[in-house]
Amino acid sequence: MPDILHKVDIKTNPNNTYKALTTLEGLAGWWTTTTQGNPNAGGTIAFRFGELGGFDMKVLELDPARHVLWQVVGGPEEWLGTKIDFDLKQNGDWTTVLFKHQGWKEPVEFMHHCSTKWAVFLLSLKSLLETGKGAPWPNEIKLDSWE
Amino acid sequence: MPDILHKVDIKTNPNNTYKALTTLEGLAGWWTTTTQGNPNAGGTIAFRFGELGGFDMKVLELDPARHVLWQVVGGPEEWLGTKIDFDLKQNGDWTTVLFKHQGWKEPVEFMHHCSTKWAVFLLSLKSLLETGKGAPWPNEIKLDSWE
Repeated sequence: MPDILHKVDIKTNPNNTYKALTTLEGLAGWWTTTTQGNPNAGGTIAFRFGELGGFDMKVLELDPARHVLWQVVGGPEEWLGTKIDFDLKQNGDWTTVLFKHQGWKEPVEFMHHCSTKWAVFLLSLKSLLETGKGAPWPNEIKLDSWE
Repeated sequence: MPDILHKVDIKTNPNNTYKALTTLEGLAGWWTTTTQGNPNAGGTIAFRFGELGGFDMKVLELDPARHVLWQVVGGPEEWLGTKIDFDLKQNGDWTTVLFKHQGWKEPVEFMHHCSTKWAVFLLSLKSLLETGKGAPWPNEIKLDSWE
């Protein structure tokens, strides 16, 4: 099964990076301003993108400053059941973030779009942590004619 | 075998997009300013990134305004033999670019990095065609501590 893979180094420590992935305030600072729900283990977080809809993520695993794993429990058909994995490693003054969106059934055109869009949002995460300002939806870089 | 997949819509026609992928001037405008060689079918293009090295691409297929296929014949071990595929489709006033970097043996950490970095350069291609100004190396967005 094809996966979406990404990597960014962020000039901050793994604790700060983990907070941006596991608090509503952090997530709203880089992915979408409309983030609600329960970001603790076993909880479900609702990410919304206005008329484009959104995703509900169940928090499957949390390992402070090391690992975050979500499973998609609501959203587009292609996303249902897929898993989103953030692996954090200290790298001197930096945190290396290895990202995987796993479990896609087919490498459909929408998967190509989502891969590029994840890169856009990971750049937003990097910017949030390095400068204090991310570019979450609706202010993220647009890729497609319908966005 | 895992692939890197991306998609961007660019507000220009497929002819202009094809030129940016098949001329030395076009390629130097979004990927790296140090682009040399023969961009015609059967030719080899040398893309260089200063001390970081670079890639030699053999041009395997060219179908005007539709398709560009390269194979890596020089560069890092992980890239050798892999193929880079640009598929262009007209979409009203836009061109949809479907991108694939195929033939990776393993989903190594370097593949994660290259996936995100391809997104950065495809945003540069989009910017070049929509605004007249791309962000090729050495002025592209940096992702990693060693860049």
